[in-house]
Amino acid sequence: MDKITVAEARKAEAVGRHVRLQGWVRTRRDSKGGFSFIELNDGSCQGNVQIVAPGELANYEAVVKHLHTGASVVIDGEVKTSPAKGQATEILASHVELIGNADAEKYPLQKKGHTYEFLRTLAHLRPRTNTFGAIARLRHQVSMSIHQFFHEHGFYYIHTPIITASDCEGAGALFRVTTLDPDAPPKVAGKADFTKDFFGKQAYLTVSGQLQVESFACSLGKVYTFGPTFRAENSNTPRHLAEFWMVEPEMAFCDLNDNMDLAEAFLKRIIADALKYCAEDMKFFQERIDPDLLKRLDGVLNKPFKRVSYTEGIGLLLKAPQTWEFPVAWGSDLQSEHERYLAEEYFKCPVILYDYPRTLKPFYMKVNDDGKTVRAMDVLVPGVGEIIGGSQREERLDVLEQRMREQRLEPEAYSWYLDLRKYGTVPHSGFGLGLERCVLFLSGMANIRDVIPFPRTPGNAEY
Amino acid sequence: MDKITVAEARKAEAVGRHVRLQGWVRTRRDSKGGFSFIELNDGSCQGNVQIVAPGELANYEAVVKHLHTGASVVIDGEVKTSPAKGQATEILASHVELIGNADAEKYPLQKKGHTYEFLRTLAHLRPRTNTFGAIARLRHQVSMSIHQFFHEHGFYYIHTPIITASDCEGAGALFRVTTLDPDAPPKVAGKADFTKDFFGKQAYLTVSGQLQVESFACSLGKVYTFGPTFRAENSNTPRHLAEFWMVEPEMAFCDLNDNMDLAEAFLKRIIADALKYCAEDMKFFQERIDPDLLKRLDGVLNKPFKRVSYTEGIGLLLKAPQTWEFPVAWGSDLQSEHERYLAEEYFKCPVILYDYPRTLKPFYMKVNDDGKTVRAMDVLVPGVGEIIGGSQREERLDVLEQRMREQRLEPEAYSWYLDLRKYGTVPHSGFGLGLERCVLFLSGMANIRDVIPFPRTPGNAEY
Repeated sequence: MDKITVAEARKAEAVGRHVRLQGWVRTRRDSKGGFSFIELNDGSCQGNVQIVAPGELANYEAVVKHLHTGASVVIDGEVKTSPAKGQATEILASHVELIGNADAEKYPLQKKGHTYEFLRTLAHLRPRTNTFGAIARLRHQVSMSIHQFFHEHGFYYIHTPIITASDCEGAGALFRVTTLDPDAPPKVAGKADFTKDFFGKQAYLTVSGQLQVESFACSLGKVYTFGPTFRAENSNTPRHLAEFWMVEPEMAFCDLNDNMDLAEAFLKRIIADALKYCAEDMKFFQERIDPDLLKRLDGVLNKPFKRVSYTEGIGLLLKAPQTWEFPVAWGSDLQSEHERYLAEEYFKCPVILYDYPRTLKPFYMKVNDDGKTVRAMDVLVPGVGEIIGGSQREERLDVLEQRMREQRLEPEAYSWYLDLRKYGTVPHSGFGLGLERCVLFLSGMANIRDVIPFPRTPGNAEY
Repeated sequence: MDKITVAEARKAEAVGRHVRLQGWVRTRRDSKGGFSFIELNDGSCQGNVQIVAPGELANYEAVVKHLHTGASVVIDGEVKTSPAKGQATEILASHVELIGNADAEKYPLQKKGHTYEFLRTLAHLRPRTNTFGAIARLRHQVSMSIHQFFHEHGFYYIHTPIITASDCEGAGALFRVTTLDPDAPPKVAGKADFTKDFFGKQAYLTVSGQLQVESFACSLGKVYTFGPTFRAENSNTPRHLAEFWMVEPEMAFCDLNDNMDLAEAFLKRIIADALKYCAEDMKFFQERIDPDLLKRLDGVLNKPFKRVSYTEGIGLLLKAPQTWEFPVAWGSDLQSEHERYLAEEYFKCPVILYDYPRTLKPFYMKVNDDGKTVRAMDVLVPGVGEIIGGSQREERLDVLEQRMREQRLEPEAYSWYLDLRKYGTVPHSGFGLGLERCVLFLSGMANIRDVIPFPRTPGNAEY
């Protein structure tokens, strides 16, 4: 007898096989005919397989008729063609064994239709629900697509550091990493003495692996980093996490147009794979979460991305037949309402905005010949707005140093980064995609806390 | 004209193509015949491609003859069959363009044969060397093999949290994560007031994602986590890092024998892939780093792993015809000398030791019927010793709670973990493999700081 998964047991090819299934009871229904239906799930797919447990089973009265939602069971039986609609197969059980009970009085997922807020307090149990099982499988597939896409395109996966004493780009609030006694830290001149700390100086959790991964692009050519990044911002919004995963490719001998080509191909690959390999889960999201989901994804997958300079974009916004909450002017950052107007209403397709004012963007972006703009790009998609941000990097040593001073950064603190421009500098480019933003986009879910296994936000680091 | 990589240009199939290559000069040698040889590398592979730059090039005297190690160049030319031994092709250049110079007086990698100690001070430049380029490519391949192996076997990739307020298994020294003012933290009763900290309580960097990933195994069946983990131990050894990557699979309905089967198949797949997809780099390691490497890997790849209980292992050690630095007795932990004796001398093959004394192992390992041992396993390989550690988990609520108290842990602090045993508990198992230990094993390198891009150790968090 072969052990098979629920996903395998649901396929018509399985009919006739004598198999063992192992999983958890979703529901049990007793028929008047003296037998029971058990909906069994093992996480291998969204759907359950129906077990027909005949009354003749030796433990039918004592065990089967008391199986509750959440109980774990081992089922032996034969795969049969199902007479019911919507399922190809069912299992006629010859043996039903209870492994672990789930007390119907106490099991928190007993009833249907819990709110996401409630389920966030049960992060260890919520993957047992349809929605969070689907999200876990989709998140897995997106991660696989990321690795496979870059591997197939000749990129190397580089693990950039999580703890760093380099304050990357001076951006965002930082978490400090320390082993000093919190109650009585060693002091010097009245201040904490970080020379006594684990790393001999203040150290932080990374906000981006870009600068470090650039050093590998400048030796291996095409690389990417994919790992956790951190922001200590006190933001309690459905769009912010203190800990999230980000993928950042970086390519040597690559300009902004190559970078746009890559970002577009990359995003389309992720969508195509999700539709192909998570078809059942995507159908679930469409039916239960967001009725416009598949149409919107189809629009991104099948349309060329429109490339529009920031300056052109500002012109379109100024001419738009509507009023803005945030005023539009050349030199101001675009707000969500502006991004969504361009992608959803004006162009009705994904838009890559590029060449932003230098004053809006970090020091490492390449300055254009106009002196006013830098080779930045943001990819805007309908329904979400900005999903990818990137740039061509400034490869000229003198311009880079000038940009650092302009932004009140000390070039001395970045001497290793400047070395990449001193020794065999090359034009290079890259971008970043937040994994959770991407899973929100693909699933139609509304709150970022629901697309990461154990969300970390102000006041929340349980589990 | 196609842009191709050095790896592509070195293949005989490329002969006759007119191509563009982009990379960095490894060396330049001027021939008496009035032309120059440039060894070009772009990171796509270990080897260089030889560029023949004829004296007729317009910039031959002004530029080509001044190209130094580390300079970045763009080369256009035709791929020719090489008359030289050891290379299938060479490039007859029609155009050589200098992109970024590398001042021969200042470039730190100018001369050959730097020590690893020196190169550790240049973590941003060392991937430009043969050794560190090879390590980066191998590390990439191992990471890909990990993802592909589990994906193909129906596992889901779960991102367990990096920051956690759960003190997983009470193991190891922890890094604290905080946003409190280090100089004047808020205090209550003379102690730091963590209710004012970002997460409202003390939070730490994870030492393992196992407990959290178990909750996904108990819903999705087969899962794994692969991410950074942290130890704040003040260990300055060639085997310890404060930040390292670990992969931890976890399977529901899986006992220790299934777990051993998986660990063996997994390790063999990683070795087979490294030999297949990193052949040139592995040859380099064999020739330059460790002359026994390929023989040792072959022994692990092609022999069944010997499964030996801890108790049998102790018996063999007691009978061994040699003296031990650390005494051998039932109940003591095995030291490296013992592990290596069993794998290298007695069995001469990989060994899986299992069923360790309960007093030696963490609370979550399943207690055997003898009451004295737990269902732990360690995989020992020749040359390295322990490379994988795992166990079947204790799925019985009462035994688990008793084991926690035995180890002076408060069951209340692990209520979510205990829930997995309260509601539909299942036998489950898993193991952990440290990525850096694995890359040491595969490369023959001696120091763990040399197999991670930016090593973090006491006093070191640069870059």
